[in-house]
Amino acid sequence: MERTINNDLPRQVGQRVKIAGWVHNVRKVGQVNFLLVRDRSAIAQVVLSPEELQPLAELQRETVVEVTGLVQEGPTELGVELHQAAVTVISPVHDVLPFELAKKEVRASLPVFLDHAAVGHRHPRRRAVLTLSAGLMAAFRAGLQKRGFTEIQTPKLVASATESGANVFPVKYFDKTAYLAQSPQFYKQIMVGVFERVYEVAPVFRAEPHSTSRHLNEYVSLDMEMGFIRNHFDVMATLNALLADMMAYLPTHYAGALELLQVEPPRVPAQIPWIYFPEAQNLLIERFSLTDVAGEPDLAPEHERVLGQWAKSEFDSDFLFVTGYPMVKRPFYTHANPDDPAYSNSFDLLFRGLEVVTGGQRLHRYDDYLKAAAAYGYNPETFQEYFEAFKYGMPPHGGFGMGLERLLASLLQQKNVQEVTLFPRDMNRLRP
Amino acid sequence: MERTINNDLPRQVGQRVKIAGWVHNVRKVGQVNFLLVRDRSAIAQVVLSPEELQPLAELQRETVVEVTGLVQEGPTELGVELHQAAVTVISPVHDVLPFELAKKEVRASLPVFLDHAAVGHRHPRRRAVLTLSAGLMAAFRAGLQKRGFTEIQTPKLVASATESGANVFPVKYFDKTAYLAQSPQFYKQIMVGVFERVYEVAPVFRAEPHSTSRHLNEYVSLDMEMGFIRNHFDVMATLNALLADMMAYLPTHYAGALELLQVEPPRVPAQIPWIYFPEAQNLLIERFSLTDVAGEPDLAPEHERVLGQWAKSEFDSDFLFVTGYPMVKRPFYTHANPDDPAYSNSFDLLFRGLEVVTGGQRLHRYDDYLKAAAAYGYNPETFQEYFEAFKYGMPPHGGFGMGLERLLASLLQQKNVQEVTLFPRDMNRLRP
Repeated sequence: MERTINNDLPRQVGQRVKIAGWVHNVRKVGQVNFLLVRDRSAIAQVVLSPEELQPLAELQRETVVEVTGLVQEGPTELGVELHQAAVTVISPVHDVLPFELAKKEVRASLPVFLDHAAVGHRHPRRRAVLTLSAGLMAAFRAGLQKRGFTEIQTPKLVASATESGANVFPVKYFDKTAYLAQSPQFYKQIMVGVFERVYEVAPVFRAEPHSTSRHLNEYVSLDMEMGFIRNHFDVMATLNALLADMMAYLPTHYAGALELLQVEPPRVPAQIPWIYFPEAQNLLIERFSLTDVAGEPDLAPEHERVLGQWAKSEFDSDFLFVTGYPMVKRPFYTHANPDDPAYSNSFDLLFRGLEVVTGGQRLHRYDDYLKAAAAYGYNPETFQEYFEAFKYGMPPHGGFGMGLERLLASLLQQKNVQEVTLFPRDMNRLRP
Repeated sequence: MERTINNDLPRQVGQRVKIAGWVHNVRKVGQVNFLLVRDRSAIAQVVLSPEELQPLAELQRETVVEVTGLVQEGPTELGVELHQAAVTVISPVHDVLPFELAKKEVRASLPVFLDHAAVGHRHPRRRAVLTLSAGLMAAFRAGLQKRGFTEIQTPKLVASATESGANVFPVKYFDKTAYLAQSPQFYKQIMVGVFERVYEVAPVFRAEPHSTSRHLNEYVSLDMEMGFIRNHFDVMATLNALLADMMAYLPTHYAGALELLQVEPPRVPAQIPWIYFPEAQNLLIERFSLTDVAGEPDLAPEHERVLGQWAKSEFDSDFLFVTGYPMVKRPFYTHANPDDPAYSNSFDLLFRGLEVVTGGQRLHRYDDYLKAAAAYGYNPETFQEYFEAFKYGMPPHGGFGMGLERLLASLLQQKNVQEVTLFPRDMNRLRP
């Protein structure tokens, strides 16, 4: 007999079928016993008499079983249940679970959960989180594909640091030293010369020696880069429309996971509000008395949080662009604001007060790269192959990198990105 | 005036428009000059009188330009051309091109091409190759998505080697040593316990100290893993159907690139022929007098090539499964053939005689992992978190890894995978 997926059971009423999955729970109500079998699609209920249950008395949760039985209508979420069942054990369980998977919530501290994530992710809520992670990737690709972007996969082993010499992981590469790419920045810019519009979904590596609720040392970056822009506002407009598409994609394709987590994607305004960096600083000082922001070239997480709240109350928006970060804090390929050259044509996107995207316009003229490299004290030889793209004609362009885990954490209103990461990497965690 | 994409010009006949792109070529035919402007969608032809061309006499190929002009019907591929044109230079060119981009083929040796790939990929044929690379990734995802698979992104920084202690790149990870993942093997198996069916498109890293036309030290692996199989033949059947979908996806979504490269995707048989490893050896010895195969635990590239030709002549198939590789050559998680335990429930897929996929059934019982680790002399502590998934019930499962670059090379009948790789990495090449 072919296996039936639990979700297909409602179409099989009156038939004998075979299902397979994990013992999610065994419940006893009076004289009736309920065996809940979880597969990739749903949890099915098997009704067992005490006699039928008896040989299964030792059946532990997470045991892999096959069940044949008769599909009948019943008071379950699927609307059906199995009767006259025969249960076969496929793979037994060898130990007590590190924490319960059949309770509504996982009851374990984050470190304990992560130590046992290999089994912990089976919890329906955890699975829903990872399903939405897949959903955001699919939504990102779909939204860019329809806008004429081409997918690329760029090397993660690189000969020199992308952003700066600091915070890169060195790799012993035969008799050389290579580095793990901090971002696909150089490559996606090069590929603007080929495709005009490119995107990549891939891991990036940051050797930042701090453990916070917002940082991972390896994360999935949703990157794009586009040519023939006027300035960073064209990139922001594309991101704005893309986010609207992504937030609409989830309820269409991932309604089950959203419902289980009781999450509703936020409204994306037709035009996400934006504030110029110096104005954001003034606002924080004058309206919120956050005087520590004065003279700083960047915003602290606390400042971003306050700005996020301000955007919510002022514009009813979960999103806020902060534009024009000071040039001193931005990498050498950053395009200055022509009207205010201490500031850049760059932006961050705050989502509920958390920075989830960094982007901007890049330099596009070869001469400008030579000047910028000199100003930053870099040897242009280091960037020879990168600069070659600009030697041969590059349009004005820009793009962004969006952190998948941060986006998902904000969407799910989770405080720690590790809560939404498959197997997170930080200074102290390389396993599982 | 908003920019018009070249592909949209046929809808603008009689209108003045603005286009933008790269000077692909300038051609002079008698008194008429043709400026070819390449953008992401197509090459547009701009007709210039000698007077109009004169101020552009120095215009070099690859210069980025904007052109406004009147769209008229004309004898071009698009069916239209621009007249009464005004050309503005956006970004000039600073050097002589390393090789011509406007000829039908790239005329450069592979090393010279790769040194200048940052500009070389702009050649329409190269761009078509990379477009098909994106197409294969999209096709892979679409084919698995519709079969109930969930996308995962697993860590590339790992605490221990996946396949064996050899051929891993060590990474200085703060005060520890980490390794670059050789495959997502352990993680995708763990995730069978969560989603039953998972896939990943991501880089893998192999520190193999040899330079061949078939190997890259970093490549894109199309991985999947599925639960509740009978044996590896279920994985092969899924791969077979997936390949058929993928080869049908390309003409539907990437007809232009296929046409430019004059490539037709191969027919995928409803059932790809398969041959058991010992029988393949016998065939090579008896039919093809390749006696060096005798007693070997693996096939050499030359043997695979001959088997590929045999499958073509015998079954008119570009694809051939070789099943049952000897256990001695397979990693410790490999499931043995229950009827012939020196051989494994594994397979390779040859595509035109090139191995493009390796897969098989894995062990699924916790006890079997402990035994296998002991037999291979591994410390089970090393694999503690991986083994945990099997402690708590795992179904029979299997999967495969498909090399994107090999698949594409075979599709395009290219002898060297570097010919179809964006920025390849080998022992001697870390740039660009």
